[in-house]
Amino acid sequence: MVKIVGIGGSLRAESQSQLALNLAALRVRSLGAEVEVLDLRQMNLPFCNGEKEFPDFPDVAKMRKAVAEADGLILATPEYHGSVSGVLKNALDLMSFDQLSDKVTGLISVLGGQSNSNALNDLRVIMRWVHAWVIPEQIAIGQAWKAFDANGNLLDDKLSQRFDEFAKSLVESTQKLRKAA
Amino acid sequence: MVKIVGIGGSLRAESQSQLALNLAALRVRSLGAEVEVLDLRQMNLPFCNGEKEFPDFPDVAKMRKAVAEADGLILATPEYHGSVSGVLKNALDLMSFDQLSDKVTGLISVLGGQSNSNALNDLRVIMRWVHAWVIPEQIAIGQAWKAFDANGNLLDDKLSQRFDEFAKSLVESTQKLRKAA
Amino acid sequence: MVKIVGIGGSLRAESQSQLALNLAALRVRSLGAEVEVLDLRQMNLPFCNGEKEFPDFPDVAKMRKAVAEADGLILATPEYHGSVSGVLKNALDLMSFDQLSDKVTGLISVLGGQSNSNALNDLRVIMRWVHAWVIPEQIAIGQAWKAFDANGNLLDDKLSQRFDEFAKSLVESTQKLRKAA
Amino acid sequence: MVKIVGIGGSLRAESQSQLALNLAALRVRSLGAEVEVLDLRQMNLPFCNGEKEFPDFPDVAKMRKAVAEADGLILATPEYHGSVSGVLKNALDLMSFDQLSDKVTGLISVLGGQSNSNALNDLRVIMRWVHAWVIPEQIAIGQAWKAFDANGNLLDDKLSQRFDEFAKSLVESTQKLRKAA
Repeated sequence: MVKIVGIGGSLRAESQSQLALNLAALRVRSLGAEVEVLDLRQMNLPFCNGEKEFPDFPDVAKMRKAVAEADGLILATPEYHGSVSGVLKNALDLMSFDQLSDKVTGLISVLGGQSNSNALNDLRVIMRWVHAWVIPEQIAIGQAWKAFDANGNLLDDKLSQRFDEFAKSLVESTQKLRKAA
Repeated sequence: MVKIVGIGGSLRAESQSQLALNLAALRVRSLGAEVEVLDLRQMNLPFCNGEKEFPDFPDVAKMRKAVAEADGLILATPEYHGSVSGVLKNALDLMSFDQLSDKVTGLISVLGGQSNSNALNDLRVIMRWVHAWVIPEQIAIGQAWKAFDANGNLLDDKLSQRFDEFAKSLVESTQKLRKAA
Repeated sequence: MVKIVGIGGSLRAESQSQLALNLAALRVRSLGAEVEVLDLRQMNLPFCNGEKEFPDFPDVAKMRKAVAEADGLILATPEYHGSVSGVLKNALDLMSFDQLSDKVTGLISVLGGQSNSNALNDLRVIMRWVHAWVIPEQIAIGQAWKAFDANGNLLDDKLSQRFDEFAKSLVESTQKLRKAA
Repeated sequence: MVKIVGIGGSLRAESQSQLALNLAALRVRSLGAEVEVLDLRQMNLPFCNGEKEFPDFPDVAKMRKAVAEADGLILATPEYHGSVSGVLKNALDLMSFDQLSDKVTGLISVLGGQSNSNALNDLRVIMRWVHAWVIPEQIAIGQAWKAFDANGNLLDDKLSQRFDEFAKSLVESTQKLRKAA
């Protein structure tokens, strides 16, 4: 069985990218995968300053361990200024090839405005840089403020179906590609 | 006379992107421009959480004010994982169209490995997103650990000349394009 | 007065990117600029094979001359497979720094599906590579099949206004930035 | 056994991207895969004009058939103006999801100047757009004019090793990911 770690790139209390991440996690879990969601709002991470170890911030080691032990990743980012959030990029900067290489990754972005794939494109190249896989299925949710109901469920059936395909591809391709396999 | 603000995206004590930024600032200043360098290592910025105001972090307001009053920007980033550093992206996320639109921007990236323009490309699209100008002249310093001498001067004449062209273009095009002009 | 050359990247008889290009040309002309539209459907260009001269294809020299004498450019591309069309990229490949450097460029893309800025991002980096300027204003027309009426006019007022802003910025910034100025 | 099709994006007689493609093809073949190289210099392809069929250009159908029957692809492009060549992009534009989806793809770029990954980044996003896989291993050959000896062999051992890793990853991941599998 595959292990997937999800990381959300928003610190907003009512973050829609966290909603999207949780939804993707649910779908992935329902396919039998083990899923751990790292909620950066609950963690205390420093800005990356190029140091290797961060003894004052035990959450760095916790995040690194979780990712190192995973087979795959879900990265969900709000699109800020046409790219990945600094919060998520900084979390990635705190890790290295040791944790990130060979992971099979699925990407989600969430925007206030019209749908767009800039943040997803940047993340795709970033994850390649650390020698990870990125699945072709990706999800960009435009006008995210009207995508979810009060319970965090998707209002649009087609989008919901896209999450199903995303989860299925992530689990199946992680099974095929993971290092140990 | 034009006002330029420089922001460096590394928190490392011996940061080469800060060296590169300071060098560019010197060249720009020698052309008669007023230059202020915001050293994020000396500032206390929070992670962007989507809030508009950050009363506990007066450096947010200080950065916003400095950028709002500038005509142009120099952004210098280390290339981490094939893109802009999370530190710099987060600083940009803390600002909005109010501060960033219409600024004339010059971009610098610094890499440990072979020269590459990924971080510069991402920054170019990010700055367009906030409706800023980005000058065609850009500087990517590969193998940065051997680019500077002990006094922070460039060892390569061609690279030094590139800084001159960068500074000249930034000052001249800011004079031509700035909003007030 | 500034001279602008427009190039459209579609060879389709009923091309919507050509409609968009013609519309932008009209708006730019109404601001007093001289505009020449190069319709690649009417021209006979070869595939770029790395040769410098193409004596059998006089349209290469014609295109190069028109672009060399221009101060600014409008590039309009259909978004094929999430990027610029091969037709337009090949036309650019047939030119070099001699023609393209320092041109002030405005970018338009046209898509059948949902709006997206991939082709515009790629073109922005391509034009920087040849040391051209690209204005921050850019236009991506999604679901282009319902954007125009039978006379080639825009059905959406906001989009029409965007063309006005695009034309105004292109003309004004070309006046400010052009080499001769 | 997997079937791989290679397509080179240069029409130059002494093309180094064709050399690189042939070399990659050899390494892939030596791992037991079936490899067919489509040399666009020997084929007669039209510019893509949005038509579905090209009865006057039988090479379109030939290329489509070869790609449709393949499990994986090698795309080798010269980097022109900081992106994929128009020649290669046009060849891709002549195909669609029918041929390109689900293919496992390896990317190579060749530059006259300093190594860079712009063309590879653009190709990565393009291939994702058509729902193909792109392997993390990629090859950018800078200063390609001094990369090969007179027999088309690589002069640099590290680069040669990179071709080995590229070939190994392409064959192994195609075995794991191909649709039929």
